[in-house]
Amino acid sequence: MKRPIGIFDSGVGGLTVYKTIRAHFPEEDLIYFGDTARVPYGPKSPNTIIEYTLQNARFLLQQQIKILIVACNTSSSVALPNLHKITKIPIIDVIQPGAEQAVISSKNKRIGVIGTEGTIRSNAYTEAIKKLNKDTAVFSQACPLFVPLAEEGWLDSKITHDIAYEYLIELIDNDIDTLVLGCTHYPLLKGIIQDVVGSKVCLVDSAEAIAVYLSRLLPAEQDGIKGKDEFYVSDNENKFSQLAGRILGTQASYLKRVRLYESWFIDDILLSAI
Amino acid sequence: MKRPIGIFDSGVGGLTVYKTIRAHFPEEDLIYFGDTARVPYGPKSPNTIIEYTLQNARFLLQQQIKILIVACNTSSSVALPNLHKITKIPIIDVIQPGAEQAVISSKNKRIGVIGTEGTIRSNAYTEAIKKLNKDTAVFSQACPLFVPLAEEGWLDSKITHDIAYEYLIELIDNDIDTLVLGCTHYPLLKGIIQDVVGSKVCLVDSAEAIAVYLSRLLPAEQDGIKGKDEFYVSDNENKFSQLAGRILGTQASYLKRVRLYESWFIDDILLSAI
Repeated sequence: MKRPIGIFDSGVGGLTVYKTIRAHFPEEDLIYFGDTARVPYGPKSPNTIIEYTLQNARFLLQQQIKILIVACNTSSSVALPNLHKITKIPIIDVIQPGAEQAVISSKNKRIGVIGTEGTIRSNAYTEAIKKLNKDTAVFSQACPLFVPLAEEGWLDSKITHDIAYEYLIELIDNDIDTLVLGCTHYPLLKGIIQDVVGSKVCLVDSAEAIAVYLSRLLPAEQDGIKGKDEFYVSDNENKFSQLAGRILGTQASYLKRVRLYESWFIDDILLSAI
Repeated sequence: MKRPIGIFDSGVGGLTVYKTIRAHFPEEDLIYFGDTARVPYGPKSPNTIIEYTLQNARFLLQQQIKILIVACNTSSSVALPNLHKITKIPIIDVIQPGAEQAVISSKNKRIGVIGTEGTIRSNAYTEAIKKLNKDTAVFSQACPLFVPLAEEGWLDSKITHDIAYEYLIELIDNDIDTLVLGCTHYPLLKGIIQDVVGSKVCLVDSAEAIAVYLSRLLPAEQDGIKGKDEFYVSDNENKFSQLAGRILGTQASYLKRVRLYESWFIDDILLSAI
């Protein structure tokens, strides 16, 4: 039996990763899960990010996936050790591939990293880069408004440009020559970000590096049968379908909504339903 | 036994309502719940908003509240009929009081309404205003970036001013004399909004009108004992505590985190845990 590759993100951003993987591996079965009912993850606490990440991973593991790709930078930077505790299948996160690509790209060893509050606070990119080359200076900046701006589709407005300038001016002043787009939403704002930092700064997004990682885990010979695509979201399947169409350039043929069964606890006391 | 009044919001925004109620009713016990683990509600689908609203209300009902105040505009505009199905206690939403205040305030019968995507899409304010005065023209506009801007504390930046102008210019061109702040976060941006629409436009926020509603439901005579405050959040209790301190001008003395017990379904099939 052919087992699929599972990919999840907090929302639609991970589709930028999905698209690259589909292009490189046309014969693999892919399952995507977007937690659109609880997006964004960036401003939330580590405990909550870990809880949500494990729930999403468990859902994909139930679909018998053979490899798990964590396309969400916030989940990758906070919850990776917890994920390894619940499964033995290979897990590919977005941090390590992005860090490697940045170290290869940087000539002056001054690297900028942008991401959500959760990703930047975790220091995961800085640690990964320093581990690869301890002499590299890393400058990081949380850009919490980039996700809502990307989701609102303000991809080329003057205001988005001004906000990007506000966030990035310190990194530019620090003379970086490489900037890691440490959130899967940010490639959607690539045009404006490149414009603000200037054409000499190399922008790193993890999707291509993930594809290289993945190729090491897959057999060179494939079966010649076109892979299947399945998409699951926890909310807003229509909005997801539209955005997916725009990002992937094709319709999401198999798309289902997944629901949560939930009730509230105070600390560890379960309250019975009214 | 003294029974408390319950108030909930998707996050910290409802504290603007809480503050007004506490000021008017110092002897009432108040319980606040902020769903900070799943904020924002605005961009989510009606089904998900209803699901979250019912969970939050059930939690407060379990605390034996005597009155439920829905301080979240998105929940108020989408889930009110569902709430009435699960309890017989009085429910005060933010839509009706805001609509009444707007109709009283407007001289030229041209009213603007701003809110989240969910609130504006529901048409709840327009319908409530038209019911009170069918000759009123209502112009509405979703402002999805206002919540993240308020949460980031960009309360008086040039960029927030530019975004507000972008959102509000059509309402100004339509010659409104009254603008309903149809989201409990928006009073935090009152300064900038007033600046953009001009001093002749009256801004309506629901908190005061809710206090008037509430006074009709409570006995005139009180027991002279200072009311208790309890705060519950689903995430980020430290961040909430800081913001609460800033909004209320005092520390949240009793604050607990509440957790959800959750697992994913596809449609109606419950998948067993791995």
